[in-house]
Amino acid sequence: MTSWADGLRLVDHHCHSVVGHALDAAGFGALLTEAPVPAGDPWDSMLGLAVRRVCAPVLDLPRHAPPADYLARRAELGTAEATRRLLAATGTDALLVDHGLHAGELLGLAELAEAAGAPVAEVVRLEAVAEDVAASGVRPDHYAVTFVEELARRTRTAVACKSILAYRYGFDVPPQRPAPAAVAAAARCWRREGGRLRDPVLLRHALWCGIDRGLPLQLHTGFGDPDEDLHRANPVLLTAFCRATAATGTPVVLLHCYPYHREAAWLAQVFPHVWFDVGLASTYVGHRAAEVLAEALELAPFGKLLYSSDAFALPELYLVAARAFRRAVDRVLGGWVAEGEADGDDVRRIAAMIAGGNARSLYGVS
Amino acid sequence: MTSWADGLRLVDHHCHSVVGHALDAAGFGALLTEAPVPAGDPWDSMLGLAVRRVCAPVLDLPRHAPPADYLARRAELGTAEATRRLLAATGTDALLVDHGLHAGELLGLAELAEAAGAPVAEVVRLEAVAEDVAASGVRPDHYAVTFVEELARRTRTAVACKSILAYRYGFDVPPQRPAPAAVAAAARCWRREGGRLRDPVLLRHALWCGIDRGLPLQLHTGFGDPDEDLHRANPVLLTAFCRATAATGTPVVLLHCYPYHREAAWLAQVFPHVWFDVGLASTYVGHRAAEVLAEALELAPFGKLLYSSDAFALPELYLVAARAFRRAVDRVLGGWVAEGEADGDDVRRIAAMIAGGNARSLYGVS
Amino acid sequence: MTSWADGLRLVDHHCHSVVGHALDAAGFGALLTEAPVPAGDPWDSMLGLAVRRVCAPVLDLPRHAPPADYLARRAELGTAEATRRLLAATGTDALLVDHGLHAGELLGLAELAEAAGAPVAEVVRLEAVAEDVAASGVRPDHYAVTFVEELARRTRTAVACKSILAYRYGFDVPPQRPAPAAVAAAARCWRREGGRLRDPVLLRHALWCGIDRGLPLQLHTGFGDPDEDLHRANPVLLTAFCRATAATGTPVVLLHCYPYHREAAWLAQVFPHVWFDVGLASTYVGHRAAEVLAEALELAPFGKLLYSSDAFALPELYLVAARAFRRAVDRVLGGWVAEGEADGDDVRRIAAMIAGGNARSLYGVS
Repeated sequence: MTSWADGLRLVDHHCHSVVGHALDAAGFGALLTEAPVPAGDPWDSMLGLAVRRVCAPVLDLPRHAPPADYLARRAELGTAEATRRLLAATGTDALLVDHGLHAGELLGLAELAEAAGAPVAEVVRLEAVAEDVAASGVRPDHYAVTFVEELARRTRTAVACKSILAYRYGFDVPPQRPAPAAVAAAARCWRREGGRLRDPVLLRHALWCGIDRGLPLQLHTGFGDPDEDLHRANPVLLTAFCRATAATGTPVVLLHCYPYHREAAWLAQVFPHVWFDVGLASTYVGHRAAEVLAEALELAPFGKLLYSSDAFALPELYLVAARAFRRAVDRVLGGWVAEGEADGDDVRRIAAMIAGGNARSLYGVS
Repeated sequence: MTSWADGLRLVDHHCHSVVGHALDAAGFGALLTEAPVPAGDPWDSMLGLAVRRVCAPVLDLPRHAPPADYLARRAELGTAEATRRLLAATGTDALLVDHGLHAGELLGLAELAEAAGAPVAEVVRLEAVAEDVAASGVRPDHYAVTFVEELARRTRTAVACKSILAYRYGFDVPPQRPAPAAVAAAARCWRREGGRLRDPVLLRHALWCGIDRGLPLQLHTGFGDPDEDLHRANPVLLTAFCRATAATGTPVVLLHCYPYHREAAWLAQVFPHVWFDVGLASTYVGHRAAEVLAEALELAPFGKLLYSSDAFALPELYLVAARAFRRAVDRVLGGWVAEGEADGDDVRRIAAMIAGGNARSLYGVS
Repeated sequence: MTSWADGLRLVDHHCHSVVGHALDAAGFGALLTEAPVPAGDPWDSMLGLAVRRVCAPVLDLPRHAPPADYLARRAELGTAEATRRLLAATGTDALLVDHGLHAGELLGLAELAEAAGAPVAEVVRLEAVAEDVAASGVRPDHYAVTFVEELARRTRTAVACKSILAYRYGFDVPPQRPAPAAVAAAARCWRREGGRLRDPVLLRHALWCGIDRGLPLQLHTGFGDPDEDLHRANPVLLTAFCRATAATGTPVVLLHCYPYHREAAWLAQVFPHVWFDVGLASTYVGHRAAEVLAEALELAPFGKLLYSSDAFALPELYLVAARAFRRAVDRVLGGWVAEGEADGDDVRRIAAMIAGGNARSLYGVS
């Protein structure tokens, strides 16, 4: 594939970090699926085919190299060299990283920036802040104010906040800010019972503190691991929340969205403060990313769609996502030109917006 | 594009009227989106590209003319001449018009017929009738009977009734006809509180009066402006209502449906009295109308799909919808012939059914 | 169509039996739709076109023969000969048959095996067992244990159990096994009221007995006749049930799934014990089966997708499904090779898995 889309510079507005240590076949395979345990051979999937197609040549192997050859060559090169090569091949100018998931097993943000050869900015996970506040032993009636202070402290240099309400409960919650008394009562309950943050009142409280903070607020929506009920993670369930936050001026950014990306595109059209991406899907669906992109663009204003990989742990996933995106842009937007629906100048401008321009404006990254 | 589909004569079974006055850039742009306020440049969308692609040549400009050039030429020609040219280019034999939305700012039905060079028939919006009845100061215990009388009067020459239950509440209501006492109680409540009709009992009452009236009953479903919760406008939520009305003989017509058109197609297959369209979507998704049409036809009996533009205010939208439909028919049905799935005679017959034949039979227009 | 996919041997892991008697035009047409009564000409659909395209040549007619010619030739050949020819043309090695629906009007399993020239194994419908137990006049407090005994007896040589919870209630039920006292109370109620099994407690009880039985448990999901509420048959509503059954070791097999097959594919990826198919859809959507297959494969591990026709009564439906599947495999998997996304060896291996290998492993058929 040589295409005009190869030259697009990407801003990956939502990803995680990479593992710094060597992985055996089982460890590598487990990162090719959202299942807790893969059923069958995890390479037998669109993602597995894409890794063999896209990453093998970067490690000096022929396209479609068998998994065993791939893993052997990767071990031979070493994790650091393989990571460096794979990330460099993505053509990414900046990474916005949620480092709130298994951070201990992944490279730190400075190390990631070094490996990627690109600046890294941080996205702060609201639920991680809440859990740290709770773990600090704060009195329940001080929980709310302490959370706000801690969030301010942690986001001093961050570019966005992020909510994983979809994983911890679902979007079937009242859209309004919860009352202070309800927050204090829920904090008392949580202190007594412990565990991860799953209380819907406290989750909404964190979400609204994210809105108050004013940074773009990313929400995991759609496809993910089996901790969530997929249908309760449908972004369209956030319609009333979008209505309730329209006047605040805080951007709401819907992540992933698949297979509900047509509904997400509607939200992005009808609410001026809503953006979205089809990250994660681009990685997993491989060859089909063109169709997913085309569906997302049916209703989406071109200024509202962002690029992300949502890659986690494997540098392969950053590259698969980037290549899937470039190929999709080539097929979909290039197809508009080929069929006379748009001219080349417009299409190059629109492609650059989606690849990085929209994210640069939204997050103020350069 | 020159294609056998260019010769199809259309019946636009659901649209609105056009503005008669000049529009500035902001006014024009605001009509290219379902957002209350566009975010960014409203021309940066599939619809914006389609207007430049399809309408510019009709106003003597090159394809893909920049928006500023387009608006300047449109102003130079004048609204009346631009409207006349754009509507004439649609190839429409008849327009069925819902004139219950912002009628004061749009051409009257006779003027629209004149501008379009085609007959116009009226679709009566049930909620508009209800609001006029309420505004007349009728006693709440006379509300129901007065509504029926007023509906009969207003629909004397109409071809269909229409419900916007999706906008005013959602489809998550009991499917049955509400009891007379409940209607009177709700009418009392509405009289006290005033405002638009949003009470689910009265909305259902209006809907069932529409069923009783016997004319095809159109329902807005799917994609629209942010007044609605999109997921509560999913036509599949009308399944129980379809079951409840199957024996009445009144056709139920699901409008727009996107992105739930596959579910709508199922309803059209399994309920003999259900029809549907993918209007509005054809307009907005531009180039992708072929995919939407193909999805709609997966389960739909060919006799149950209708053409509409759902165009509102801008004559450009009538033409974009018509061209998107013709191109989609050419790609999808023409593709069947090219791949040997169907022969040309069948395909021409089926295309003519969807373009206008089905609507002619359903509404009795000629 | 001559293609490498023509040589794939199929295991049809979910179908019904065929009618043994002659059908008139109305009787034949009624079997081309999921509607209780077809609206318009039932041949005017993707399925109708596919029958004319695919089956006519098998009965010595030209492609696209008019319906009247097709029915005349079919009558001339006789039901037995037409059935034999159509089934033979499918290339099926084994049929797994749910014989719990209108069994009296269809060939018995031995006769079907004879007509198809392939072995037939049985899938036992849980609700049919429950209704037979109830009809036997068992005491309500013995219902549960009698059901387990009868299920064991009936499934002695069966390869799977099947639930039609979607038709009898919907998936919006608690995921857990119901308590014995609740089952006995519901059995008392059912005994008093009679009728088909529609009680959600007893339906869940049957489902969990199916899980306990250990055979793969098939569930009707998605598209079917208007007895169901389609949205309440969305397989994603089974997420909590999948979580609750993950540790049992019993495979859960989601049938049909359309138009929710992307959500089903997610379940198949994230739950090691979940499999699925896009049967019935392949039959109905005709030419579009390639798109449905491509969507299903976006997230599905290749080892988790199965082939089925879900054909019922008409031998034409087995052949239309088989040909639609072969063409879809040719287009989708063949497309991967053509575009360099995968190599030919992998693709042939994956195609054979989906066509039959996955089913052979799952059901232990050879």
